Amino acid sequence: MLKNTQLEDWDRENFFHPSTHLAEFARGNLAQRVITTASGCHIEDSAGNRLLDGFAGLYCVNVGYGRPEIADAIAAQARELAYYHAYVGHGTEASITLSKMILDRAPEGMSKVYFGLGGSDANETNVKLVWYYNNIRGLPEKKKIISRWRGYHGSGLMTGSLTGLEAFQKKFDLPLDRVLHTDAPYYFRRKDLDQSEADFVAQCVASLEELIAREGADTIAAFIGEPALGTGGLVPPPAGYWPAIQEVLDRHDILLIADEVVTGFGRLGSMFGSDHYGMRPDLITIAKGLTSAYAPLSGSIVGDKMWKVLEQGTDENGPIGHGWTYSAHPIGAAAGVANLKLIDELDLVSTAGKVGAYLKGALNDALGDHANVGDIRGEGLLCAVELVEDRDSRSFFDPKKGVGAAVNAALLSRGVISRAMPQGDILGFAPPFCLSESEADEIAGKLAEAVREVLG
Amino acid sequence: MLKNTQLEDWDRENFFHPSTHLAEFARGNLAQRVITTASGCHIEDSAGNRLLDGFAGLYCVNVGYGRPEIADAIAAQARELAYYHAYVGHGTEASITLSKMILDRAPEGMSKVYFGLGGSDANETNVKLVWYYNNIRGLPEKKKIISRWRGYHGSGLMTGSLTGLEAFQKKFDLPLDRVLHTDAPYYFRRKDLDQSEADFVAQCVASLEELIAREGADTIAAFIGEPALGTGGLVPPPAGYWPAIQEVLDRHDILLIADEVVTGFGRLGSMFGSDHYGMRPDLITIAKGLTSAYAPLSGSIVGDKMWKVLEQGTDENGPIGHGWTYSAHPIGAAAGVANLKLIDELDLVSTAGKVGAYLKGALNDALGDHANVGDIRGEGLLCAVELVEDRDSRSFFDPKKGVGAAVNAALLSRGVISRAMPQGDILGFAPPFCLSESEADEIAGKLAEAVREVLG
Repeated sequence: MLKNTQLEDWDRENFFHPSTHLAEFARGNLAQRVITTASGCHIEDSAGNRLLDGFAGLYCVNVGYGRPEIADAIAAQARELAYYHAYVGHGTEASITLSKMILDRAPEGMSKVYFGLGGSDANETNVKLVWYYNNIRGLPEKKKIISRWRGYHGSGLMTGSLTGLEAFQKKFDLPLDRVLHTDAPYYFRRKDLDQSEADFVAQCVASLEELIAREGADTIAAFIGEPALGTGGLVPPPAGYWPAIQEVLDRHDILLIADEVVTGFGRLGSMFGSDHYGMRPDLITIAKGLTSAYAPLSGSIVGDKMWKVLEQGTDENGPIGHGWTYSAHPIGAAAGVANLKLIDELDLVSTAGKVGAYLKGALNDALGDHANVGDIRGEGLLCAVELVEDRDSRSFFDPKKGVGAAVNAALLSRGVISRAMPQGDILGFAPPFCLSESEADEIAGKLAEAVREVLG
Repeated sequence: MLKNTQLEDWDRENFFHPSTHLAEFARGNLAQRVITTASGCHIEDSAGNRLLDGFAGLYCVNVGYGRPEIADAIAAQARELAYYHAYVGHGTEASITLSKMILDRAPEGMSKVYFGLGGSDANETNVKLVWYYNNIRGLPEKKKIISRWRGYHGSGLMTGSLTGLEAFQKKFDLPLDRVLHTDAPYYFRRKDLDQSEADFVAQCVASLEELIAREGADTIAAFIGEPALGTGGLVPPPAGYWPAIQEVLDRHDILLIADEVVTGFGRLGSMFGSDHYGMRPDLITIAKGLTSAYAPLSGSIVGDKMWKVLEQGTDENGPIGHGWTYSAHPIGAAAGVANLKLIDELDLVSTAGKVGAYLKGALNDALGDHANVGDIRGEGLLCAVELVEDRDSRSFFDPKKGVGAAVNAALLSRGVISRAMPQGDILGFAPPFCLSESEADEIAGKLAEAVREVLG
């Protein structure tokens, strides 16, 4: 290990960190943290801190840190064959096996998987495929994509356009053309507090119908959504939302892209969020939970209906002009195979459901009656606590006060990592599936302390 | 190892291969190849074939296959800490060390490195940063990007738009807005055979000047180019091209993005193509050679001039809204550190220059006087043989004849992998840097046999 001072200097001089205040970091005003090792739900840093990671990295280390089964699979693959490409029918035992394992677990009606590196590039692939699909069908005008406000679908130019959060668009000239946004299915933030959940869903549907009528269904190719909103606030959909949306899409010949980067492979207590909520997607985006982040790998699962048209497209136009050098990278594929096996062997999908229910209960017990806690919500191990200035009127704090960030910092000082979500005073929890009940209690207890420290 | 028939079925039923004729592969008419292991410049498949890989995967396995130093570094990192994110000032010893190693090797005037996964997402980052840069400077209209026909910059929506090759745009509605293309610096394919190389460069410059005048320099943000054209034909630039282009860009306040995904870290016999050809880039794209493909990792190296503005941007707007979950992934970073160390220890950069010169000589000896060989070109270990129907008139074959693909297949049947480049009858060679002289002789000799088999 290098001396910390040496590493700190190198870091501030050379490293462009994502989602960081670049000037403050370069000036040394923003803390630096060098992670050295991790095990289960805990990470350790070079200053000797040991922290309970309530967000599993970026909700991705689903099986927990330090699993030798996955590390061994990566090591063996690196020694035997670290790389070969997957172009023009090439593959490896790991990538082929993983494609089979993914399809075995996917919702009904899915046909093939295209491998990428991360969630953003998988959604990029999805948009390319959707446009190609309608070109082959002879519908060149049917190309717009509807996303939701507060959806998160990546950080690229197109994928950041699909994302409906200001921080990812401001100063980047996003969204690009062909992207439309409709209502976020966020019942807690409804305008009319007296509105019922059923009426709120009806309003989401009416709003979508209006958008489609205004733009013309013959201009709209697809609708993209996370089964439960992720970075936009960790919000499970209101009851009946997805079947109602699905009916509208089917009626207008609009494809459904289920972005399961966060929810895929167990986080909601079910293998896929699409099955959990009754979605019938034509494309499914997968990433984080596919490898539990032990190596970069993502995927686009393509449904039968689209696949037939893609085949027709290559009969008419030759090989499909889409490829990443690192598509189906052997290291990622080996990590994915080992990860999915481990999830089965340890029954981690149902564990996520059970521990998630326990965590939500513990959060309710610890904070349910606090005057500034407006909402405690979650499904499986995707939970959030949303803070409000006044509970009865459900009035929010001035964002400039940074209340969520302050609570997040107070919690971190107690050794627990949550995520202050970017739009609202929302503390997010999405720990590894191996979270124990005592660790869940620790999160809830320390969060209550942190909330009281900041808000009384 | 699973039985081959089982793997073959799974593959055809589940795996969406990049750059593949999907229908032919699903029907079983396109060959499948399962790679099992590899060492040095050779790969082996499940059918027992051992092939000399003259293209280093997709010109990325620069140090050669089976290097235990890199495999061990990956294994150790996987066991100690397979993942933590790099957001908000987080890092690992490997990612910080690698950022320092990259900047130590980069051309003068570079400041920071942003880590991605592959070349496409790194160019996506570059376009985002260029737009942000001119927004912060108060130049919101200055946003268009000039690329070159036959440039290759990725396969996404924006990066595939920058790419100037038909196969990557057809049926995908590309290029997107804000992307312009100018002349390919491809002297062999000049229109007027009597034109001198100097006059050809002057024409490229005049053509660029005309484009800038037509669009308005105040609408153009950046120019992107590979130091030597890659997928567009493996074409070193004509003498004096880059200094002449650089002068135009400087005069019009247009940034230069050097896409060094192929050329970075030694392929031309120098650490970076920018230094090799006298480019002074503001952004440098790196990927393949950064890890020799042992794990996915890319980067955008940001120059001082842009970095200052990015810092100003975060002072004015808060943390930069750009991040990939797998940015600076520890496994990729560990592979990168081990790879760059190995390149130094084995002096592979100068080796690439020497062996490359030997290979070009061997190709000339074997094929220089063949009536259908129009051009044998290369710089370092980036070489191509371009076939023509008639040498004196430099007339090309009808693309429908698939002459390049036929020669490629004839060479493969002799145990040597080249790449039939997608636009033209061009056989590409970009082997690992550890290619021996006898392996270079084998490539040249068998290519001559393959050319004679197809063309007489």
